[in-house]
Amino acid sequence: MSEDRPLDVVVVGGGIIGLAIAWRASQAGMSVAVLERDLAAQGTSRVAAGMLAPVAEVEFGEAGRRQLELGLRSARTWPAFAAELEAQSGVCVGLMRTGTLLAARDDDDARELERQLDFRQSIGLAVRRLRPSEARELEPALAPTVRLALEAPDDHSVDPRQVLAALRRACGTAGVRLREHAPVARVELDRESAGGTGTDGPSGAVTGVTLQDGELISAGRLVLAAGPWSEQIEGLPAGAGVPVRPVKGQILRLRDPAGPGLLRRVLRFRGGYLVPRADGRYVLGATVEERGFELAPTAGGVYELLREARELVPGISELEIEELSVGLRPGTPDNAPVIGRGAVGGLVWATGHYRNGILLAPLTAELVAGVLADRDDPLLSACAPDRFVASTTVGAGA
Amino acid sequence: MSEDRPLDVVVVGGGIIGLAIAWRASQAGMSVAVLERDLAAQGTSRVAAGMLAPVAEVEFGEAGRRQLELGLRSARTWPAFAAELEAQSGVCVGLMRTGTLLAARDDDDARELERQLDFRQSIGLAVRRLRPSEARELEPALAPTVRLALEAPDDHSVDPRQVLAALRRACGTAGVRLREHAPVARVELDRESAGGTGTDGPSGAVTGVTLQDGELISAGRLVLAAGPWSEQIEGLPAGAGVPVRPVKGQILRLRDPAGPGLLRRVLRFRGGYLVPRADGRYVLGATVEERGFELAPTAGGVYELLREARELVPGISELEIEELSVGLRPGTPDNAPVIGRGAVGGLVWATGHYRNGILLAPLTAELVAGVLADRDDPLLSACAPDRFVASTTVGAGA
Repeated sequence: MSEDRPLDVVVVGGGIIGLAIAWRASQAGMSVAVLERDLAAQGTSRVAAGMLAPVAEVEFGEAGRRQLELGLRSARTWPAFAAELEAQSGVCVGLMRTGTLLAARDDDDARELERQLDFRQSIGLAVRRLRPSEARELEPALAPTVRLALEAPDDHSVDPRQVLAALRRACGTAGVRLREHAPVARVELDRESAGGTGTDGPSGAVTGVTLQDGELISAGRLVLAAGPWSEQIEGLPAGAGVPVRPVKGQILRLRDPAGPGLLRRVLRFRGGYLVPRADGRYVLGATVEERGFELAPTAGGVYELLREARELVPGISELEIEELSVGLRPGTPDNAPVIGRGAVGGLVWATGHYRNGILLAPLTAELVAGVLADRDDPLLSACAPDRFVASTTVGAGA
Repeated sequence: MSEDRPLDVVVVGGGIIGLAIAWRASQAGMSVAVLERDLAAQGTSRVAAGMLAPVAEVEFGEAGRRQLELGLRSARTWPAFAAELEAQSGVCVGLMRTGTLLAARDDDDARELERQLDFRQSIGLAVRRLRPSEARELEPALAPTVRLALEAPDDHSVDPRQVLAALRRACGTAGVRLREHAPVARVELDRESAGGTGTDGPSGAVTGVTLQDGELISAGRLVLAAGPWSEQIEGLPAGAGVPVRPVKGQILRLRDPAGPGLLRRVLRFRGGYLVPRADGRYVLGATVEERGFELAPTAGGVYELLREARELVPGISELEIEELSVGLRPGTPDNAPVIGRGAVGGLVWATGHYRNGILLAPLTAELVAGVLADRDDPLLSACAPDRFVASTTVGAGA
């Protein structure tokens, strides 16, 4: 890797976003390396439940609408992405096209679901209102106390751990060089060269990165896909960074010793969700906590997830707990992702995917591979890395 | 080990009971081997919380009184046992002499605690009644809703994992041979020799054991200290076994990132207990379930432990969950232990310690070492292995 000839692209971050980008860039004929601070596929992506749920996740307001557009397009991409990935890797990614139920446990929940239903129907999303008896017919494990449910028939799920295993293998086959335990200390810039895209932004262009052990890795393009750790990389001029913070999510992995069948669909409710796998395993998530880089599951977090889920699906009491884990979602000020050219030449951002990293991986890889080939998709304007700069500048009183 | 000269004693089971017996027998000059089916110190003893709580555990009735006598004597033995073990091993066993609180959350609990107080005082046990304000003065982390508490100032705790580490080392120093991954298939008997102690019991005398891989290990005495697995060993004549079953207990290990101080005393309540360690760690236990040899923590078990504990100590919500684990307590029909000579010559039982294996380890080791040296303590009559035989025979209609 330290040969004289620089790489076309260095991707920092070996999660689902980084690996998907590396795969696509390599397929497009570029020489690509992925640098991972720890072990690839062991961070946030591995903890994620794997919901592909743009309809269930959509939020009111302008940012919500922009997110919806990204989510719907990536969700439509998923089946072909999964099929290609499975064909190239030989690994099944566990795409389950069984739809999602949103369930209300009490009158407050039910009123909120009615509002959500109206909103989704007003923007043309496929959502169906289910009476309690209809919901329990679809999912008999639901408690008799369920008040109302919505069905989002097009919101599906994958198994992120399988996706990661498949991507890792596909990257290997495609010639991507993956270096683990290779934490990046700083971005190297050539300040003499042409400036970035921002008219007032700092100038310079990426020449590579320096690892924490001092090794220099030269590359013409640099993709920062390091999730919540993206901000820890030094060397960018002031104002060229993006604000991304860790948002802690605690998740339980459960297994039904009686095999599959308790739940068929993804189930979402106030305070959490239950995602079934095909083999009788379930993912119960997730807390949303602002606790910095704290990585331990807590008594309170686990208790609340179990309480909410048990109330709606009493049968989960019998499930075995196989794993407690914590993921750090990369959150931005508007919780929409940051994808596209940075303020210095050759720098491309791909982080801030918050709760939607698995859903948005295929689209992000496609968008970034486009940018690396100098083809910019109109959707990129919704994810512009410089959208926080103005407010930051104003906030600083400059 | 397969040399011609037989060992004086083979102990089956590398938990706290087996190791403590081996240590004491070796100190008395006997040649001793411990055979452990899996890894020593990794089963029930390792999961145990380590309460030394004869006063808190005492139950009404005849069996309860017998258990109390055993428990009080072993509790009195613990400080000297711990000191000797620490001196010989160099490992601190974490004996904390801070006493135990029994706390009531509601009127039902409070009425039950009053009954428990009367009972304990009637048999002369040291227990003090605390008003809610007094209890919260001792343990400010208690919820304001606490209704009543009892203090058992002489019920303490140790860290079983430290005790096991110390015993392992002390056994090594004392010359005990520990063989792990050595599951015993059957007891070998010499049917020509003198019979057992029971007048009507089956005759024969132990000559050793055969491992599952066929290896024969010769010994003059055999101690069965294999907890709930004790019944799985074959080769004993009909009627010479003891009824012992696994009783599942789920336990959480918690850690306070803020360090020690949340709780100083062991706290017991309906549905569980919290045992503090000196370093800010806590053990929250335990379910009591009849589920055979099932070893997985469940959503329902963990949920209920957290719910009960949180209600009384809301501050545990902030604690990290370091571990979920399951132990299989060896239970007998009256839940009292089985300690003493078996129905064939040379056979000694040491199992059935149920919820009190850590508490009773020093006394059990002392009693069994006595039996091996042909000195029988009067207390053994309370633990007689043949006490279930008559009822079994009657039950079988013979």
